[in-house]
Amino acid sequence: MHRTKVNVATDVLDANETIARANREDFDRAGVRVVNLMGAPGAGKTALLERVLMEGLREFRAGVLEGDIAGSLDADRLSALHVPVTQLNTSPGFGGECHLDANMVRSALGAMDLQAIDLLVIENVGNLVCPAEFRVGEDARAMVSSVTEGEDKPLKYPLMFRACELVVLNKIDLLPHLDFSVDRFLENLEQVNPGVKHMQVSARTGEGVGYLKGWLEGLAGHRPEAG
Amino acid sequence: MHRTKVNVATDVLDANETIARANREDFDRAGVRVVNLMGAPGAGKTALLERVLMEGLREFRAGVLEGDIAGSLDADRLSALHVPVTQLNTSPGFGGECHLDANMVRSALGAMDLQAIDLLVIENVGNLVCPAEFRVGEDARAMVSSVTEGEDKPLKYPLMFRACELVVLNKIDLLPHLDFSVDRFLENLEQVNPGVKHMQVSARTGEGVGYLKGWLEGLAGHRPEAG
Repeated sequence: MHRTKVNVATDVLDANETIARANREDFDRAGVRVVNLMGAPGAGKTALLERVLMEGLREFRAGVLEGDIAGSLDADRLSALHVPVTQLNTSPGFGGECHLDANMVRSALGAMDLQAIDLLVIENVGNLVCPAEFRVGEDARAMVSSVTEGEDKPLKYPLMFRACELVVLNKIDLLPHLDFSVDRFLENLEQVNPGVKHMQVSARTGEGVGYLKGWLEGLAGHRPEAG
Repeated sequence: MHRTKVNVATDVLDANETIARANREDFDRAGVRVVNLMGAPGAGKTALLERVLMEGLREFRAGVLEGDIAGSLDADRLSALHVPVTQLNTSPGFGGECHLDANMVRSALGAMDLQAIDLLVIENVGNLVCPAEFRVGEDARAMVSSVTEGEDKPLKYPLMFRACELVVLNKIDLLPHLDFSVDRFLENLEQVNPGVKHMQVSARTGEGVGYLKGWLEGLAGHRPEAG
């Protein structure tokens, strides 16, 4: 039983890599840079995106692909900002997939006008496990971890924190009301992903959101060679 | 591809049900009632358990099975309370399973002295998706949702909120610092699981934790017929 399960998983991951590469080529050809945005449910992924998109990216046109199990709450919030938003619901398969995979993103490509954007942010399903295992064709992976989740999360979900190029520590406005040591969180992060870029922000107050905006602009400005 | 994936999933769930029933029979035979405790990463599952176990259950002896991808942080925290704690790490399979299944729990049965406890709390991996699909042999399922995660969670992760007999809304001490309407959360919950039992607590201040203690005691006191 266990051996069979592992084999199935390996096949699934192999197929996923192939499709992810095809997605990446399509994105490159269109000159679109792509971020896979991950984090636990309620970490503040959508709220952060709202903040960044409200301010607007300097010179660059952003689009969003929203991954959700059910509903279009996040897509509705974001489309109020006049940014192209595509909704991808995962619920038809297996009672709701707990992550986006490359094939799901591929199935959404036809619904997106890649010529109209420079940067695509793919908001993954809220989950600290499986999204880290499935590339979707992204240039970079960023994750949001909120201070309310606790300092221990890098040690408990190491693959997720290790898979990212950027860790955004969100909800720092709540620090005065919590027993959360930023230093200890960063020590734990350093243990699993030494030297990873990180920043501290509050989507609620806007503090530090400029750093994230700058990071996204830097990524968008780094044109694909084939672009 | 899609069709194949669904078939594999169905087979996996069928096998899981069979093993879950076997676990349930073993628990019943030993007179142990079992709770499957679920929630997002950082919702406060361990902190709530700590609070409850620190106060102790009236008349009943509790044990804990800790599901984690990696490490033993939670088990270490709980074992300080002199309660039997068994650690179950999911990391060998598939880069870390995102949920416990019946077979994982079965593999831990030999390490637990079921005669020494009346109530077993199984703390699942932090995840609002897959744990809801895999019964492990429990009598009841409870989930913890923290107010910092947002009011929309029942609508975004409906299967999880629907699968539970109890929803514990945690971190209510932070309400004054958040834009979170308890009424709206409860309306959303009512939409996906009408009439489900719910309670509001703070693991940090201890407010409302007595309700959870009472619920667990009620479950432990409801002896299995074969007990």
